Amino acid sequence: MTETMKAMVYYGENDLRFEERPKPKIIEPTDAIIRLTKTTICGTDLGIMKGKNPEIESTAKEKTGAFNGRILGHEGIGIVEAVGSAVKNFKVGDEVIISCVSRCGTCENCQKQLYAHCLNGGGWIMGYMIDGTQAEYVRTPFADTSLYHLPEALDENVAVLLSDALPTSHEIGVQYGDVKPGDTVAIVGAGPIGMAALLTAQLYSPSEIIVVDMDENRLDMALDMGATMVINSGKEEPIARILKETGGRGVDCAIEAVGIPETWDVCQHVVKEGGNIANVGVHGQSVSFALEKLWIKNLKITTGLVNANTTDMLLKTCCSGKLPLDKMITHHFKFDDLEHAYKVFKNAANEKAMKVIINY
Amino acid sequence: MTETMKAMVYYGENDLRFEERPKPKIIEPTDAIIRLTKTTICGTDLGIMKGKNPEIESTAKEKTGAFNGRILGHEGIGIVEAVGSAVKNFKVGDEVIISCVSRCGTCENCQKQLYAHCLNGGGWIMGYMIDGTQAEYVRTPFADTSLYHLPEALDENVAVLLSDALPTSHEIGVQYGDVKPGDTVAIVGAGPIGMAALLTAQLYSPSEIIVVDMDENRLDMALDMGATMVINSGKEEPIARILKETGGRGVDCAIEAVGIPETWDVCQHVVKEGGNIANVGVHGQSVSFALEKLWIKNLKITTGLVNANTTDMLLKTCCSGKLPLDKMITHHFKFDDLEHAYKVFKNAANEKAMKVIINY
Amino acid sequence: MTETMKAMVYYGENDLRFEERPKPKIIEPTDAIIRLTKTTICGTDLGIMKGKNPEIESTAKEKTGAFNGRILGHEGIGIVEAVGSAVKNFKVGDEVIISCVSRCGTCENCQKQLYAHCLNGGGWIMGYMIDGTQAEYVRTPFADTSLYHLPEALDENVAVLLSDALPTSHEIGVQYGDVKPGDTVAIVGAGPIGMAALLTAQLYSPSEIIVVDMDENRLDMALDMGATMVINSGKEEPIARILKETGGRGVDCAIEAVGIPETWDVCQHVVKEGGNIANVGVHGQSVSFALEKLWIKNLKITTGLVNANTTDMLLKTCCSGKLPLDKMITHHFKFDDLEHAYKVFKNAANEKAMKVIINY
Amino acid sequence: MTETMKAMVYYGENDLRFEERPKPKIIEPTDAIIRLTKTTICGTDLGIMKGKNPEIESTAKEKTGAFNGRILGHEGIGIVEAVGSAVKNFKVGDEVIISCVSRCGTCENCQKQLYAHCLNGGGWIMGYMIDGTQAEYVRTPFADTSLYHLPEALDENVAVLLSDALPTSHEIGVQYGDVKPGDTVAIVGAGPIGMAALLTAQLYSPSEIIVVDMDENRLDMALDMGATMVINSGKEEPIARILKETGGRGVDCAIEAVGIPETWDVCQHVVKEGGNIANVGVHGQSVSFALEKLWIKNLKITTGLVNANTTDMLLKTCCSGKLPLDKMITHHFKFDDLEHAYKVFKNAANEKAMKVIINY
Repeated sequence: MTETMKAMVYYGENDLRFEERPKPKIIEPTDAIIRLTKTTICGTDLGIMKGKNPEIESTAKEKTGAFNGRILGHEGIGIVEAVGSAVKNFKVGDEVIISCVSRCGTCENCQKQLYAHCLNGGGWIMGYMIDGTQAEYVRTPFADTSLYHLPEALDENVAVLLSDALPTSHEIGVQYGDVKPGDTVAIVGAGPIGMAALLTAQLYSPSEIIVVDMDENRLDMALDMGATMVINSGKEEPIARILKETGGRGVDCAIEAVGIPETWDVCQHVVKEGGNIANVGVHGQSVSFALEKLWIKNLKITTGLVNANTTDMLLKTCCSGKLPLDKMITHHFKFDDLEHAYKVFKNAANEKAMKVIINY
Repeated sequence: MTETMKAMVYYGENDLRFEERPKPKIIEPTDAIIRLTKTTICGTDLGIMKGKNPEIESTAKEKTGAFNGRILGHEGIGIVEAVGSAVKNFKVGDEVIISCVSRCGTCENCQKQLYAHCLNGGGWIMGYMIDGTQAEYVRTPFADTSLYHLPEALDENVAVLLSDALPTSHEIGVQYGDVKPGDTVAIVGAGPIGMAALLTAQLYSPSEIIVVDMDENRLDMALDMGATMVINSGKEEPIARILKETGGRGVDCAIEAVGIPETWDVCQHVVKEGGNIANVGVHGQSVSFALEKLWIKNLKITTGLVNANTTDMLLKTCCSGKLPLDKMITHHFKFDDLEHAYKVFKNAANEKAMKVIINY
Repeated sequence: MTETMKAMVYYGENDLRFEERPKPKIIEPTDAIIRLTKTTICGTDLGIMKGKNPEIESTAKEKTGAFNGRILGHEGIGIVEAVGSAVKNFKVGDEVIISCVSRCGTCENCQKQLYAHCLNGGGWIMGYMIDGTQAEYVRTPFADTSLYHLPEALDENVAVLLSDALPTSHEIGVQYGDVKPGDTVAIVGAGPIGMAALLTAQLYSPSEIIVVDMDENRLDMALDMGATMVINSGKEEPIARILKETGGRGVDCAIEAVGIPETWDVCQHVVKEGGNIANVGVHGQSVSFALEKLWIKNLKITTGLVNANTTDMLLKTCCSGKLPLDKMITHHFKFDDLEHAYKVFKNAANEKAMKVIINY
Repeated sequence: MTETMKAMVYYGENDLRFEERPKPKIIEPTDAIIRLTKTTICGTDLGIMKGKNPEIESTAKEKTGAFNGRILGHEGIGIVEAVGSAVKNFKVGDEVIISCVSRCGTCENCQKQLYAHCLNGGGWIMGYMIDGTQAEYVRTPFADTSLYHLPEALDENVAVLLSDALPTSHEIGVQYGDVKPGDTVAIVGAGPIGMAALLTAQLYSPSEIIVVDMDENRLDMALDMGATMVINSGKEEPIARILKETGGRGVDCAIEAVGIPETWDVCQHVVKEGGNIANVGVHGQSVSFALEKLWIKNLKITTGLVNANTTDMLLKTCCSGKLPLDKMITHHFKFDDLEHAYKVFKNAANEKAMKVIINY
């Protein structure tokens, strides 16, 4: 057995290298080592590549005096290769889903189920503060609470969506947005997160789901996946259109799934009194919040990073097969072609790519 | 019995006249006429006087072709003088508290307990869209749901606070802010609404309540009314101080009780991950919302106008006498001296005024 | 226009008469008169017929000194024939759904959305304390909150289910039972209420729904309407079977939809720790509650009469057409054949009847 | 340093021995060893002594083939003497509160915060399935989540109440019972749990708290600790009296704090429609549940074992000093006099004992 493996490593802005790296080893007794069987690429990985997260380098240098590259990726499924002495729920050979969020389970935040903000070294760390899943093997800390048994009944490609896309959109979009039966929902942005919100919103039976995007292909996909109406914001003004379609009242819930001031602005102006704005988008700049109009409207606005506290619930619902989850997946690549997969995913609109699955 | 009465009438920016007006009459079968025994002045009344609500004139002209002045005031207690044929819960002679919010009880919003946004002519209308309580008599629409029986056990001055100040701060500040036992709460602004939030927050036993204001006298009052710490934001930077006092973590809930960008900014930067910002302030301009830092923090931000759906609950708790509610009341005036009361209240800081009670 | 109409009148135990009665008239300004176009028969009507509600006679005698029969029925749709002077939301000619629950909207209980327990003469009264819908015309008190506009998009037969069956099972079964995505639910009893619970539970995407009954035909219907497993409790012991099927753990939620000690007993012994028992059945005797085993299990047990506070939500979801609601309806009769319809419904199991629609 | 310590050991019905036992040692890497500084006796300990928990012997024999006695006690504070290699939040020398509930933090139930039902060997185990705190030293499993840092500001005697009495009554009585500002609450039973419910209910500002018991001394204590009314059920019928005092309406919440059919019966008949019954009592037999009357009342009935998920919240509120928690403590004993303490506590009514503190 060789001591190295192939991995996609980030060295700095626009410097990704698909290269040989040492295989990971158990460090803490709560760790597990997973041999990947499927992974994927997230928009966040592209953000890191573009240099949006210089904290990766700075934190590494601060802690160890040097930065020697970081293996990307926080999503995937695989087979347990080794477990630390304190791991109770998993054993070698188990098929597992890897959650993008780790948690100590004992800190103040973990005790509030706010796992994204674990104060003992958990939270989102894989492919960010520690090496990630775009490799043949990965070390997962706090394995007992960061892994999920892969059910036999579950499509393995759909299972990859349970690492991040489905829990993120479900928790931060649908649950924070309090989507209820009979609601009218607007989802602004039809990328993977918006689309996963479109799917998981349907678990709560809203009556209408309006999806806004500028890409005709993605809007067609949205209609195919359950949207009751789509608006091409490149062709018409979405605020006026949504208000018109809702009799001037607006929607019960607007889900922001892009992360720029323009999409935030659509959201804040289409929600009816007593409604919710659930921000899922990762923002790079502040936005203008029209409190002079909105203070009176009894709104609830939420933000956040996934806690992965509904992964188990989603796992059960995914197995029932009622949602067309597989339509999220547009492309398949061999792990050896990971560089090509990045090229396709970087050019997602033209390539008509949503989620791409990397098979080992 | 004369047909006219004394009333404080708004005619336009800085044009208030304390003059004789016709007494109100029952118009709808659900109306009641109340003879006031106590009223008060709200910051909102000062806002109207300063010309911040030109919709008062424009709506009147739109509906009737003319604007002939509007009697101010949406708070007070009194005695039922007459009831319409459909009023079931009140009879002539009953002592009542008048709620600032009216509701039809049957529209979509009222059925969601979102009474502030009644679609059938309710919501906040008194002293705004119809004549109000700064008069000897007032007509209250939807009397069955807009009035409350005044309990014998309740201090009548405190009862006046149940018209608006206590429900507003309790519902939009404390309840929306989800204040819980053990929480650390920051209240930014120590005017009547901030102070009422300080009092009603104590119904839920938070461990620490930090009050921020620039007025030393008000901060002293806050300490006397239950604040565990006060910060004079004219003398020191409140964000840094609050973070320091909370071990760098921030507070569980920040209540915005002013309505300007500076106070919003304090709130958005002192809330810990998983916490709440409850905006109670009435804003005149948009604010900068630091989503580039806050998207990740799993915050809940709320806004709103009082629904007065907790008035009955507050009424019961006020009777228990455990909260020093009477400390909210700093001045008393005769109704004939209402112009003088306005002068004092306009100059509240210098006059050390919080709530002023007008006695008939 | 004649002054009388045909109606099904209860005179006492086993004494129903399908006879001419005076048409109803507006009494209160909040009343409406509805000309029925469809109605149905409820198990509750059979209960009244069998003499289970002697309070009907005694209350009438107490109030008026005599009991002259009561028109049965609390379900149906129709056309507004007349409205009282205070009715705002409906006008003559409107097509409406009649709710089985009326409400004043102003009493302590109505202000808590506990409309079933209206303290001012509302609650369930039609076909019980006042004349009901099994007639050509009916008077509906508190029309503004007891009627719903019938949407064009909605199947009229399904609309009849919104009077009682769907809201009752949704509110008292599914909502009180806190059914969530991924849950395992047991529904004990496959009559109309159990079946409506089976349908409305699916609005929240539980993973498994186990239906228990002794009638093979009803169990087949349940499988056709979304049950993932059925158990014939006449052929096998349901407690042992449910525990076996859930790996010894039990279900997240058990919905009691019969109202006898045996079915309660199944529910209390198949719920896992932290789970819910939602009692919808109308019980005629007390039950044994195994607190010596259950005190430790962190259960929530709920009971209740429908508040009809989710009728509007259900109306919106019914229009979406995703649930096979029409499968609830097994028989159609002409209004003139109402006596025959009663015969069929009394013999529901043999007749394979679920809900019967009466067309005018 | 000797290898043995003094401990109160249960050997079988009415066979307690205060004897020398080996000191405990770290077994799992998540364990800690605590040197006790204060402990107490719980009603549950008396129950074990009386032979109510034969599962103690049978489980031990099943697992190890023999039963060699069990050290009692699941409450106390102390100083960390040793920690396992995986313990992160505590170090030798830390002053800690020991929770009566342990949790793995990773199982299905722990992930739902249902720690009482931990599936990996947690839950209530100390002084029951493993040796407990009525000793000089105790081993606490899952130390990171079963211990709490003792704040300097907290009275050490009050701290002992945080092991069990306060969280149990708060979670299973007050929180499950949904006590809110303005509520009327009945607490049936004025032993330590009823009294702790009386105290922790006040964190939510109910307007009235009625305490029912047969012991005059305890009723006097209740009045002194915040009850607004007491009823001696040995002298008058409590159901009729509570209904009379509440204008025939009943209470919002009834807390059962005894565990016998008679006290359950009081609770089920004094709750108003829409109200809650929170059962905290440990029952030895089934009860009669009057569903024939109660099905219609929209009640919520809850049961359960403490999860200790609010210990941290209570810890913060206890430090504020607003509740007269120290009044719970009636007696102090030296650890060497533990046998005498048991005698006094067994005879609690005559001895006017509530909680007894054992000092080392």
